[in-house]
Amino acid sequence: MEKTYRSIFKWGDKREQKLEKGIVDLIKEKFQYTDADFGKKVYYGNQQVHLHQKPRIPERICQKLSAISGSENVLNDDYSRASHALGKFYADLLYLRKGEVLAPPDLVVMPRTEDEIRQILALCQQENIALTPVGGLSSVTRGVETPRGGISLDLTRHLNKIVDMNTLNATVRVQPGIYGPALEKYLNERGYTCGHFPQSFEYSTVGGWVAARGAGQASTGYGKIEDLVLALSVITPTGTIDSKVFPASAEAWDLNKIFIGSEGTLGVITGITLKIRKYRPRNTAYASFIFKGFESATQAMREIMQAGTGFPHIFRLSDPVETSTAFKMKGFDNSFSDRFLKMKGYRPDERCLMFVSMEGDRDFARLLKRKIKKIAAKYGSFYTGSKPVRAWLEQRYESAYLRDPLMDAGIMTDTVETAVTWDKLIPLWTSVRNYLESREKTHVMAHISHVYENGANLYFTFLSPMKPGNEIEDYLQYHRGLIDVIQANGGSLSHHHGIGRALAPWMKQEMGKTAMGLLQAIKDHLDPKGIMNPGNTLGLR
Amino acid sequence: MEKTYRSIFKWGDKREQKLEKGIVDLIKEKFQYTDADFGKKVYYGNQQVHLHQKPRIPERICQKLSAISGSENVLNDDYSRASHALGKFYADLLYLRKGEVLAPPDLVVMPRTEDEIRQILALCQQENIALTPVGGLSSVTRGVETPRGGISLDLTRHLNKIVDMNTLNATVRVQPGIYGPALEKYLNERGYTCGHFPQSFEYSTVGGWVAARGAGQASTGYGKIEDLVLALSVITPTGTIDSKVFPASAEAWDLNKIFIGSEGTLGVITGITLKIRKYRPRNTAYASFIFKGFESATQAMREIMQAGTGFPHIFRLSDPVETSTAFKMKGFDNSFSDRFLKMKGYRPDERCLMFVSMEGDRDFARLLKRKIKKIAAKYGSFYTGSKPVRAWLEQRYESAYLRDPLMDAGIMTDTVETAVTWDKLIPLWTSVRNYLESREKTHVMAHISHVYENGANLYFTFLSPMKPGNEIEDYLQYHRGLIDVIQANGGSLSHHHGIGRALAPWMKQEMGKTAMGLLQAIKDHLDPKGIMNPGNTLGLR
Repeated sequence: MEKTYRSIFKWGDKREQKLEKGIVDLIKEKFQYTDADFGKKVYYGNQQVHLHQKPRIPERICQKLSAISGSENVLNDDYSRASHALGKFYADLLYLRKGEVLAPPDLVVMPRTEDEIRQILALCQQENIALTPVGGLSSVTRGVETPRGGISLDLTRHLNKIVDMNTLNATVRVQPGIYGPALEKYLNERGYTCGHFPQSFEYSTVGGWVAARGAGQASTGYGKIEDLVLALSVITPTGTIDSKVFPASAEAWDLNKIFIGSEGTLGVITGITLKIRKYRPRNTAYASFIFKGFESATQAMREIMQAGTGFPHIFRLSDPVETSTAFKMKGFDNSFSDRFLKMKGYRPDERCLMFVSMEGDRDFARLLKRKIKKIAAKYGSFYTGSKPVRAWLEQRYESAYLRDPLMDAGIMTDTVETAVTWDKLIPLWTSVRNYLESREKTHVMAHISHVYENGANLYFTFLSPMKPGNEIEDYLQYHRGLIDVIQANGGSLSHHHGIGRALAPWMKQEMGKTAMGLLQAIKDHLDPKGIMNPGNTLGLR
Repeated sequence: MEKTYRSIFKWGDKREQKLEKGIVDLIKEKFQYTDADFGKKVYYGNQQVHLHQKPRIPERICQKLSAISGSENVLNDDYSRASHALGKFYADLLYLRKGEVLAPPDLVVMPRTEDEIRQILALCQQENIALTPVGGLSSVTRGVETPRGGISLDLTRHLNKIVDMNTLNATVRVQPGIYGPALEKYLNERGYTCGHFPQSFEYSTVGGWVAARGAGQASTGYGKIEDLVLALSVITPTGTIDSKVFPASAEAWDLNKIFIGSEGTLGVITGITLKIRKYRPRNTAYASFIFKGFESATQAMREIMQAGTGFPHIFRLSDPVETSTAFKMKGFDNSFSDRFLKMKGYRPDERCLMFVSMEGDRDFARLLKRKIKKIAAKYGSFYTGSKPVRAWLEQRYESAYLRDPLMDAGIMTDTVETAVTWDKLIPLWTSVRNYLESREKTHVMAHISHVYENGANLYFTFLSPMKPGNEIEDYLQYHRGLIDVIQANGGSLSHHHGIGRALAPWMKQEMGKTAMGLLQAIKDHLDPKGIMNPGNTLGLR
């Protein structure tokens, strides 16, 4: 393997991808790009990794770590350190492309057992060494950085096993470092599914899902990760907490919920008991619709969620720009169907595409589909069958992997997400669009992908040419303004990406002084020396 | 109103109730009771309330409290103090019957606004006065006592309003002191329901539901209170926390979940935003079944919950003794149907009665009923129609009110509940039954009333003659042994009653040292002087 910066930040399939004609045309049109622009290879990152900063952890401590986890699991080479220095936040990718790794960990340690983690924590505690637990390093909110150096504790090499599965209880116990596909393969082969499919599924771990309080694409039916976790084991600097597996409980307040979303700041999650459901893909029903506008489509979504018929599993709605972009990319523009839809009043600049899947029992899925079709029709939609959903599912993780070829062409591209109650959804969507589009040459798309009785998330994607020479500050300023607008419009700072260091500066205003004090008090109790993922993660000291 | 101890502990309808013939016969048979025994009126509690202990809060502080909340809302008479001294734990009732109120509050204060609560907390903090927030005082786990005296902060007189209802978002904001029927009436009149119907519904408050992490009878469909709460306002000695209303979020860990189940130990819950659902009683479908045995019935329950067809709302299963007791009490024994069932192999000492309701959309309820009937049939059940469920619903809260006439007759009667995963359910049920029945002359009934994909609760009711002269210690010893058996068999200390002081002694072993340390650290941060509901609530200092 080539040890370039590019091999570190390259996301998804490590083979280089070409941009499809549809997106190239769109960029040419919107940003006045030429073919030459697409050959730019801006900050291509092909240089070999070389860090200026040498590891600063004394040799005697390295020896102790080697004695604990084996020298083959204690890495101090530049490449290992650089590849554990940053996540997938947009600015991280720019730093890596430029070969600027400002604060790498001193060591990457890959423990083999929970007991080793306990020993490593004790050592770090004693020697005041920062420790950041990591899984797939796919954080898009600066959740896995090492501003104080120290140790990046990589749980994916060894602690990646299924511990056991209990079909009576419909539970599976896993170690934190298991990746999505390995978990799902194991479960599917035995007739079950976890139902958790984040966009990062192929490259993220269960421990990361829990730490960042994530959501999968089918969360409307299966729930967010906090709805799937029944029990946790967490090793903190203060001691180990092993919660018991109960279907529900009233044993004081629920301590599991303190570690779900703790982003490595309180300890290392070492064991997770998850709910599992029967895997019956042949029962799944699909539906897609075109609506005349975003607002009527969201009204249909709300009515579906509040109908008392159960929830669909995947439930997505693209706004007009995202819909028309998809149409362009799929070569749908000016097709017979497109002309038919236009004739029927589904205007290209207003129409919205909705995708639905309904899983579980066959008759339940069918009943729910019938109900959803009825409500969707009431709001003026046109039913476009199940095929578009199936086509989307086949490449569901890939759109995120386009980020790299876009950045190669000098295009800033990022996604930001929030959750909001129904009454604030359209005003928030409008305000954020207005803000994002106030930048010249910017393409802004949005969708809803996680839906609740009480509201939904909103997920924004934007593309705009980089400002050469000022790429990072330009982006950060634009991003700051964006988060301000979301917060001012009553959106949550995050629905499923987490907070990390990227959104930490907004936490105090968001939570209020007393709540922030409580977060900090919990941190201080479990991690009195502040060694766990330090440096402003979640807005904590 | 008579100011007797009896008027305090008397639960439910304040009119005296007579025991039905069925239960009288059962007690005569099992406990060798005579008619004379039923006239005993053991510790009838008809004496006027008189406390030996005078209020110990200095006059200058009482004056300050009167200045804050109005003198009419600061009560120091014996009756008010005695009626706020204890909840509805079995031993509490014995103390009240004997007129032994050992640790009454010094004052009962009924604040009118959140700001008054803030002032009262500041004063208590400054003067080191214990403060116990209370709603309906229906705790059966010693959650509302005042071992250090101080103030019982009664939220039911003034802070009992609906703040607003949002039908777009399907939410309602309420003050903590609103009782179940007032909330439900308001919502029903507007086409909505909260769906939370604890056994104490008629005499408990939303604040209490949240504080004790309760569950309603229809929780299998609607969820426990922690599933219904979207946002909270809590005034703690350290400051106020107001969480925002989001449909979901990934803003660090979920602080709401720290206050749900906090049982008044961290602060005063002053505002609650709950999910609401459409109220459509005409859509509700009902079903009842007789199974040949408890084990096969629980297998059917499990399969129903894991079928992927959605969940029923009410889902109950009585074990053989509870079933045969119900048959006796309803005069069903030896009826034509009874003889028919016996002939079909549903033996009186083994058969079990299951009740189900399916709510929401009409077609959904009907589909689910069909699915449930099919699964129930597979496990050898006999369908007994919807009538028994409707009959039960009409008197659903009343069985708990029988406690008082039973105690009048010198019968110890209590209920204890737990939650457990499916694999441990039958062993736990068997062990607890064996333990409870090891006491001579004891009638032990059990049911499941809250069901999950991963397990269920178990709810035990026992009746046994009191040991005259040693009623309290006899009970406490029996109760201790019972909790030991539950814990040893992997049941939670509580599924929905909470922990209080009654179960506090088991918390350390249950949670482990580090988890208990975390609970205490949170307590110490929010309530540094330990004034909030002090004296071992939840096992906290």
